[in-house]
Amino acid sequence: MADEKLPNKKDNFAEWYNQLVLKAELADYAPVRGCMVVRPYGWTLWENMQAGLDRRFKETGHVNAAFPTLIPMSFFEKEKDHVEGFAPELAVVTHGGGEKLEEPLAVRPTSETIIGYMYSKWIKSWRDLPLLINQWCSVVRWELRTKLFLRTSEFYWQEGHTAHATAEEAHEETYRMLDVYTDFATNDIAIPVIKGIKTESEKFAGALESTSIEAMMGDTKALQSGTSHYFGQKFAKAFDIQFLDKNNEQQYCYTTSWGVSTRLIGAIIMVHGDDQGLKLPPKVAPIQVVLVPITKKGDDNDKVMAVANKVFEDLKADGIRIKMDDRDEATPGFKYNYWELRGVPLRIEIGPKDVEKGSVVIARRDVPGREGKSFIPQADIIKTVHAVLSDIQDSMLQKATEFRDANIHNPKNYEELKEVVKDGWALSWWCGSSECEAKVKQDTKATIRVIVMDQPEGAGKCIVCGEKAEKKVYFARAY
Amino acid sequence: MADEKLPNKKDNFAEWYNQLVLKAELADYAPVRGCMVVRPYGWTLWENMQAGLDRRFKETGHVNAAFPTLIPMSFFEKEKDHVEGFAPELAVVTHGGGEKLEEPLAVRPTSETIIGYMYSKWIKSWRDLPLLINQWCSVVRWELRTKLFLRTSEFYWQEGHTAHATAEEAHEETYRMLDVYTDFATNDIAIPVIKGIKTESEKFAGALESTSIEAMMGDTKALQSGTSHYFGQKFAKAFDIQFLDKNNEQQYCYTTSWGVSTRLIGAIIMVHGDDQGLKLPPKVAPIQVVLVPITKKGDDNDKVMAVANKVFEDLKADGIRIKMDDRDEATPGFKYNYWELRGVPLRIEIGPKDVEKGSVVIARRDVPGREGKSFIPQADIIKTVHAVLSDIQDSMLQKATEFRDANIHNPKNYEELKEVVKDGWALSWWCGSSECEAKVKQDTKATIRVIVMDQPEGAGKCIVCGEKAEKKVYFARAY
Repeated sequence: MADEKLPNKKDNFAEWYNQLVLKAELADYAPVRGCMVVRPYGWTLWENMQAGLDRRFKETGHVNAAFPTLIPMSFFEKEKDHVEGFAPELAVVTHGGGEKLEEPLAVRPTSETIIGYMYSKWIKSWRDLPLLINQWCSVVRWELRTKLFLRTSEFYWQEGHTAHATAEEAHEETYRMLDVYTDFATNDIAIPVIKGIKTESEKFAGALESTSIEAMMGDTKALQSGTSHYFGQKFAKAFDIQFLDKNNEQQYCYTTSWGVSTRLIGAIIMVHGDDQGLKLPPKVAPIQVVLVPITKKGDDNDKVMAVANKVFEDLKADGIRIKMDDRDEATPGFKYNYWELRGVPLRIEIGPKDVEKGSVVIARRDVPGREGKSFIPQADIIKTVHAVLSDIQDSMLQKATEFRDANIHNPKNYEELKEVVKDGWALSWWCGSSECEAKVKQDTKATIRVIVMDQPEGAGKCIVCGEKAEKKVYFARAY
Repeated sequence: MADEKLPNKKDNFAEWYNQLVLKAELADYAPVRGCMVVRPYGWTLWENMQAGLDRRFKETGHVNAAFPTLIPMSFFEKEKDHVEGFAPELAVVTHGGGEKLEEPLAVRPTSETIIGYMYSKWIKSWRDLPLLINQWCSVVRWELRTKLFLRTSEFYWQEGHTAHATAEEAHEETYRMLDVYTDFATNDIAIPVIKGIKTESEKFAGALESTSIEAMMGDTKALQSGTSHYFGQKFAKAFDIQFLDKNNEQQYCYTTSWGVSTRLIGAIIMVHGDDQGLKLPPKVAPIQVVLVPITKKGDDNDKVMAVANKVFEDLKADGIRIKMDDRDEATPGFKYNYWELRGVPLRIEIGPKDVEKGSVVIARRDVPGREGKSFIPQADIIKTVHAVLSDIQDSMLQKATEFRDANIHNPKNYEELKEVVKDGWALSWWCGSSECEAKVKQDTKATIRVIVMDQPEGAGKCIVCGEKAEKKVYFARAY
C-alpha cells in the first residue's frame, strides 16, 4: 500500500505527470499499444465533468443520440480535406464474422461523415432545423507517441453536430458552444481559458473556421482544451444535406461540430496538481470530503466513531460526496498522504480531543500545512463545509488565473518573443502570413494557439516580419 | 409530416414493430450492415433507463470505469469456451495508422478478457477485493439477421465485472445483480420478468452458471432481457487473477459478469405498445406529459396560451418532463396522433372552454378513447398529474402481468406442451437431459428459457420423456 513520493513537479514535469496519473489511479496503460484504461477514480471524475457539460448542452437545446462506431471507408473520401486529415490515423476493420468485408470500415475517429449521411436522410424541410445533436462516445486515432489523457489511440469525448438553415445561425452556434466550454472550464474545473480562432494551418480537417479554448498548464505549455468548428456548406454538399426552405426551394444546410474530451482531465492534473499529488476542483471531485477518525488500537474509540458517523451521515444527507476512511491497518499520516495524492479538496479529522471540545479539524488540500488547517464547531459543520468547498473552488481558479497572467508576455521584438516562449506565452501582432507563423515554429517550437477573438482596435507591426498586422495572436509551445 | 397508420399489431407483429421503431423515431438503420442509429428520442429513453440502473449499481457498491474498445485477438484464445462462442462474431481490425498490425485487434464483443487482464495487474491482496466495476459502452457482434434494438451488429449496454475472494461471495453477487435487474424491469419499465438459471446449452460462453430474466412480449414470445454469470475461477485462471489471502497465500479470484442492453427498449415496445404506437412507462418516458393548447387561427388565443404557459411552467418546475406542442401548422387531432404514436403517457388539452371553467382535460395514453379522458381543476394540476402518472405506471405493470400470466400454461402431457408453446409459455417438469431439451426445440422451436430459481418442493415427471424430474422449467419460443 505504500505510495512512494512523486518526482518533483518543477524539475521533472513530464515524469511527475505520468507517475501521478498512475499512482492516483486515474488511468492505466492498456495492453493495446497507445490505449488507456480509465480507472474508476478517473472515470467518476469524468462522469462529474460530463454532468456539468451535458446540463449546459441540454440548456442550449441539444439532445443526445448514438451513431455507429464503424464507418464505411468511402465516407471519408467524400470530403477531400477531411480525408487528408484523418486517413493516416484510421484503425481499419477488414474482417467481420469470419469473412473479409466487401468494404473496409474505419473505427470512428470523429463522426462528421456518418452523421452527415444520416442528416441527409432526416432533414427534409426548414421545420427540421436547426438539428442539434450531441454524442458521448470514444474515438480512435492511431497515435505513435502517446501520453495518458493527453494523446492516446482511443479517447473519450463528446461531439456535437448541428445543422442550420443559415450561415449566420451556424456561426452563432459555433461561438455559443465555445462559450459553453469557456463557462464550464472556468466555473466547474477552475481553469481559465483563452478563446480564439485557429489559423489555417491549425484548423480541423474540413472546417472553414476552427475555434478553440486554450489553457496554460503548470509548465506554461498550452493545451488545446476544446474546439468548435464552422463548416459552412462543405459537409452539407459532400453528404447532400438539403432542406426545402420557406419559399419551397432546396437549399444546402450549414453545419458545425464541437468537442471536448478526457484531455480535460490532463488539464486538471497539470493546472492544479503539486508535489503532493492531485488537487481536484470541488465541483467535479469524485470525493469532496474525506473524513479520518483518529483512533488507536486498544483505546475506547466509540465516542470518536459516534461523532464521526454522525458528521458523515449529516454531510452525506446534505449532498456532499464524502468518504470515511476508517481503515484499521493504516495510520492517520498514511491516510493524509493517500488522500492528498488523490486530490480530495477537504479533509476532516476527528480525534478524542475534538470530541471533548465539540469541534473538528478541517484541512484544505489547496492550502498546504498548518495554514490550511482550522478548528470548526461540530454544530456548524454543514454550513462550513459548503462555504469552504466553494472558497476552495474560487481560490483554485484565482491561483490558476494569476499563474497564467504572470506567464503571458508582450515581447517588444522578435528576439524577446523567442525568449519568452521558452517559458511562457507571447501575445503579439501577427501579419497573417503562414511564413511568419512557420518561422516562429521553426525557431522556437511555439505555434499560434489562437487569433484573439475580440481584437483590440487599431493595428500594429508583425512581431516576426515587421509588416502591418491587424491581428493579435497568442504564441506558445503546446501539448 | 403525415404519419401513416401502423400495421395491425395482432396480425402482423413483426412489421408493426419495425415500422413503429422507425415512425416513432426511436432508431434508424445505419449505412453499415446490421448497425443502427439510436435517434434522440430513443437515446433519451435509454438515458432515463441508464439513470435507474446506474443508481442501483452504485447503491450496491459498484463504480464505473472505461476499458479499451480494441482487444488483442490472442486474449480470446486464453479461455477456450469463450473463444468458441465469440470468435465467429468478431469484427477485426487488421490495419492502424496506414500499416498492417502485428497482431489483429477485435472490436470488443464483451470485455471479460481485457478486464481480466487488467484485474490481474490491479488485484494484489484480499484488501483489493471485492472489485466491483461496471462499464457503459457499445459492443460489436457480427450479425447477419438483424432487427432494430433486438439484434444488431453493434448495440449499447452495460457490463459489470466483479472479482471476489470466495465462491460464495461471487455467487451472491451473480444473484444480487439478477435481483437488481428484476427490480428495475418491474418498477421502472413496468415489465414483469421471470428469473432463473440457464441450461447448459443456453449458457454464456465461458460461464459456470448463467442466469437471466425473461420477459413475455406482446406476441407471447420470450425475450432474454438481462443476464448475470458466475465464472468460478475459470477466467481468473485464464488471466492469472490472483490475490494474497489473509493467511498470506496466493489464491485465484472468483469472478462474475452481468449485463443489460438497449434490447430492453425492444421489450418496452413489444410489451406495452398497441395499434396507435408506443406506450412508454412514465418513469423512463423522455416526455411524460404533452400539453396541447387548443387554439384557432383568427381567434383570440391569448387567454388559452396564458393558462397553457402557466400549467407548463408549474409542471416543469415541479420536475415533470413536459413538452408544449404549440405548432401552428398542425391540428389538435394531428398532434394527438403524433404523441400517441410516440407513447407519451399523459396529454393535457386546454381550450377556451377549459379556461372559462378553470379546468383542463387530461387523456391517458394507457386508456384509449373517452374512458381515458377526464376534466380536472387547474388548481390541483400538479398533484393530479403526479398521481395519474404513478397510476399509469402501476396499471401498465398490472396489465403486462395479467397478459403474461394468462399465457403461461401447465400442459398435462407432451402433446399439450406442443400446442401451448405455439402461442404461450409452458411451465413443466424437466428431467435435465439435453436430449429432451433438444427434442422440444426440434418439434416446436421452443427452448428452455430458464430453470425456475425457487423450485417447488418434490419432484414430477419430465414432460418430454416421462422420467423422474426434479426441475421445473419454462419452455417458450424466443427472440
